[in-house]
This record gives sequence, structure tokens and C-alpha cells, in this order.
Amino acid sequence: MSLIDALKWRYAVKKMNGQKVDPNKVEQIVEAAHLAPTSSGLQPFEIIVIYDQELKKKIQPIAMGQSQIVDSSHLLVFASWDKYTDERIEEIFKVSAQERNVPFESFTNYINTLKSTYLDLTPEQAFAHTSKQAYIGFGMAIAEAAALKVDATPMEGFKSQELDELLGLTKRGLKSTTLLTLGYRDSDNDWLVNQKKVRRAKENFVTYLN
Amino acid sequence: MSLIDALKWRYAVKKMNGQKVDPNKVEQIVEAAHLAPTSSGLQPFEIIVIYDQELKKKIQPIAMGQSQIVDSSHLLVFASWDKYTDERIEEIFKVSAQERNVPFESFTNYINTLKSTYLDLTPEQAFAHTSKQAYIGFGMAIAEAAALKVDATPMEGFKSQELDELLGLTKRGLKSTTLLTLGYRDSDNDWLVNQKKVRRAKENFVTYLN
Repeated sequence: MSLIDALKWRYAVKKMNGQKVDPNKVEQIVEAAHLAPTSSGLQPFEIIVIYDQELKKKIQPIAMGQSQIVDSSHLLVFASWDKYTDERIEEIFKVSAQERNVPFESFTNYINTLKSTYLDLTPEQAFAHTSKQAYIGFGMAIAEAAALKVDATPMEGFKSQELDELLGLTKRGLKSTTLLTLGYRDSDNDWLVNQKKVRRAKENFVTYLN
Repeated sequence: MSLIDALKWRYAVKKMNGQKVDPNKVEQIVEAAHLAPTSSGLQPFEIIVIYDQELKKKIQPIAMGQSQIVDSSHLLVFASWDKYTDERIEEIFKVSAQERNVPFESFTNYINTLKSTYLDLTPEQAFAHTSKQAYIGFGMAIAEAAALKVDATPMEGFKSQELDELLGLTKRGLKSTTLLTLGYRDSDNDWLVNQKKVRRAKENFVTYLN
């Protein structure tokens, strides 16, 4: 099945059936987000994968009571850096130096350029930027889930500050930005499953300048 | 080739060779973004596909002189809504009513809920939100390009206001958020092509709560 066919197959499942997803598939979905390109390669986000049913029950009321939270197999929380710091910017270049067998100092000029760009952002600007990077990974994770025929529901409707406190994200310098439940559709009880997928007319979405 | 293998194959090409991409493949890459899920299904972004070489030459200086702009086959500009409006929120439900053969009025309550959420946002909040949605589509377009073995370079380094003026986006209520060049790698002249792909250590990226 082509990726396009997989994307046509997927939809935002409204009712999941509780069936568990193979941990290897969950790992591949996380890996797609891990491989996602990000601005300057900084990967300014993390993913919290929640399998613990008791924890999901605590999260459900924070997420508008949505049933997929507890009927999912795994709940993925995409959490972005609250700000850029020297240490965070340097991290990936320490990895690069090791993986590519070059001195860390060879990145000094580039790192300084990045610091002059990112450390001057206001907290709002920084978080807007880190969140956008998380959304690239979010898109890739959704695509990979579809490719594996795992159902996934993207969710923005939750109280992020309450979730951050519950998961201890605030003290780690992270803020939750979006959720993705993984599981399988309950076709008999999902009002959306047989509804036609609707998108804006293509001519209102794309402009070709030839 | 699995999507994960495709994502490992891809990288942010630094030098493209000018070879043209089959328009059918470009169309599929746009279609992946068009199929991307967005908050409440509003799809608050558009894509401008630029094939015109003279226009690409005008854009290159706005985009830090990056060679991929002119050596690409097609340049995709992802442009988000500058704000939400009544008309924009209603658009997709007019399509839904038609496609699903239900009265537009059946969406009234839901539309009013969305309006009360989105129309109260500040311009900065609204644009941050529409941009994040564009980045989901951006991620999916990058994934589809990789699946088709088309090279793609994501780029945030450009002067968005100048690009908006050049492309007439401002008067359409759009703001450019990110670029994607499509084409083919010039392996003999790309310093990055043989460098190992580097990502943050997995244990610093994902937390499992079982």
C-alpha cells in the first residue's frame, strides 16, 4: 500500500476498541518522529509514551474526557522544549562529533550562530518555534502509524499545564503540545468510521506558479 | 522500502543537480500535505508550488542565497492563514455538507464552538496555531517525498515578509512559514551526502511510562 493510500485509509478515530498495539510498531512510530528533520537538527522536543492504564485514566479528564485516551493502547505526548539553552543547543553537536568522528570544536562557529539566533527569542517565540518542530515529528508519526495500519487520533484538546504537572514535564523544561493515541478503531461504535473523508477543494489549497 | 527506511535514506540535501521531478510525483507530495490531519479539520494553510525558474531566482536572495532554491525542480512554500475568520471556519463545513449529503445547519453548534475558540485568539496566537497545522502537512510532504525517492530540503531560513510580498500572499491573508525544495541530490558536490545521519540519543528523546 502506498503512503498516499495509507493516508486515505487513516482518520481521526473517535472510538477505539482497547486492543493493544505491538510494542515493535509503537517503537517504529516513535522512530519516525525521531528521524523527522528539525530546524538546525536540534530536535527540540521529546515524546512520552504512556501505556499505564491508571495514568491514562488520570489524563482522560484533562483531555475533555475523550474516550480514546483510555481505549487506546498507547498514548503519545509530544512535549516541546520551553526554551533554548546553551546546553540544549550543544547537545546534538556532541553527538555529531562522536558519530562523525570530528572534533566538537569544528562546530563552534555554527553553534555560536545558532545561539545568537535562538537564545534571543522571547519565551513565546521560542516555544512557538520548538512546537512547530514537534509538529513535523507529529506528522511523521501519524504517517508511520498509517503505514503500519495502526489507528491514531491526533488531539489538541487538553489542558497542557495540568498535563505538564501530572507528568512532571515542567521541571524538565518541557511543555506538552499535542497528543496522539495509538490503538485500533471500534468500527461498530465509531460514528466517523464510514463518513467520507473531507478536505478543502484542491484549488483552494494549492497554487501552481509555472 | 518501508517508510522508516525511506526516512533514513532522506537527508536535507545541500546541493541539488537541477534534474526535474515528474509532476505526478509533485502532485502526490502536495496530496500528502492535503490529506494531513489538522485541528478541527480546518486545514489553515496553503501550498504555493513554484516551478518558474525566474521566480526561483528572485527568491534565492530572500532565502540566504541557498543554492537549492534555484537547483531544485520545484519549490514548495507552505503559507498559513494569518488569522481565523468566520468565512474560513465555515468553508470546510460547506464542503462537508456537500460531500456527506447533510444540511450545513447540522454543523451549526460545532461551528459556533470553533468560532468561540479561534476568533478570540490574538493574531500571534492564531498564527502560531495555523503554523503548527502547516507543519503537520510539512512533515507528511517530506515523508511522501522520501517514499517516492524524491529529494527534499526543508528550509526555515528566509525572510518571510519579503517572500509574502513577492508572492502576493499578504493580500490573500497568508504568511509563509516554511519552504521545501524538491529535486535530486548532486552527490558529487554535496558535502552532507556521505555524512552519517545524526539524531539525539533515543533515551533523551523518548520516555516510556508503563
